[in-house]
Amino acid sequence: MSTTDETRAARPAGRPRSARAEQAIIDATLDLLGEGMNIAELSIEAIAARAGVGKTTIYRRWANKEDLCVDALARLKSPLPELRGESVREDLVAYFEVVVRDSCDARRRCVMSIVMNDAERHPRLVERVRQALIEPRREVLAAVLRRGVATGELRADLDLPVVMAALIGTVTWYMRDAGSDGTAESPAGIAERIVDQLLAGLAPTA
Amino acid sequence: MSTTDETRAARPAGRPRSARAEQAIIDATLDLLGEGMNIAELSIEAIAARAGVGKTTIYRRWANKEDLCVDALARLKSPLPELRGESVREDLVAYFEVVVRDSCDARRRCVMSIVMNDAERHPRLVERVRQALIEPRREVLAAVLRRGVATGELRADLDLPVVMAALIGTVTWYMRDAGSDGTAESPAGIAERIVDQLLAGLAPTA
Repeated sequence: MSTTDETRAARPAGRPRSARAEQAIIDATLDLLGEGMNIAELSIEAIAARAGVGKTTIYRRWANKEDLCVDALARLKSPLPELRGESVREDLVAYFEVVVRDSCDARRRCVMSIVMNDAERHPRLVERVRQALIEPRREVLAAVLRRGVATGELRADLDLPVVMAALIGTVTWYMRDAGSDGTAESPAGIAERIVDQLLAGLAPTA
Repeated sequence: MSTTDETRAARPAGRPRSARAEQAIIDATLDLLGEGMNIAELSIEAIAARAGVGKTTIYRRWANKEDLCVDALARLKSPLPELRGESVREDLVAYFEVVVRDSCDARRRCVMSIVMNDAERHPRLVERVRQALIEPRREVLAAVLRRGVATGELRADLDLPVVMAALIGTVTWYMRDAGSDGTAESPAGIAERIVDQLLAGLAPTA
């Protein structure tokens, strides 16, 4: 949306350069966030310096830092996982394989950090990121769970808010923990291990 | 430890005022962290201003910001939950009731934020906080799980790293999510709901 004026402008010769600048600005924003800068620390100055453009080039496209961040983060969104819809277990594994892959990527990881840590100071930005990036995925996951309850693949008495937290929280925590030793690798088959352990439960089947 | 010189000093008349200053500095540090400031943003200037003391008063006690933060955060540690050791389910609920209570407290919540977000930029501080605050609790939880496997209250084939992440991650995620709507309250019985759902698993008992 922010690029409408730019792309409408009848200056064909200028467009490639303009598109390059825009990409450089987006990349600079994502790199700085991915390096651990939070929204408060991020400045238009720093983004301009990293992108090698002037501040006015940024302000020509985005009204403010929040708009730029939301735009930049929205481009990160990896497509929703393709779910085959045949088996709930298979769909959960496919879903979490995408989550695990994303969480190994510093740029994508920052989305979660922002949502988890900047809500108090940047409520509007966090709400926009949540709407654009978190909610659509969450809805896909909730739909898989509802389908599982309907088909009998999952317990009829599932505590849905707890199960959503269990699925997302387990993967997030596991990957954070793995990442905090400096290893950003995901152990092979971790999505499958998590899904199977949660499906089976901790108690022995009596 | 940082207070040894202070408390040893043979100036009985000065000690109450000194203790008050120290407490004010600790409180200021925890308040600023609890308000969402990260370690990089936190400055000795800001702490001094908030505590109403001079910077030298701080430097007389702590060599640097990291030492002060570790000291301040260590005082937050709520005691390890008293576990009765009779039933694994009961011990898990008791354990997570403490975790839930702590996560409703902005000052305590910041411990997790720091560990999860500042590791790249402040590895030494995060490692110290982890050793002082995270590891002892984690060891208590791991011991409950090992006991459960030994007594047969838990499955013999428990995937321990996944189950640790599931327990901690579910509670953390649930409380974060609850907190992000501005409600920092914990729903009654949430520790019990989480433990029971994870024990039972998502799959129906065939």
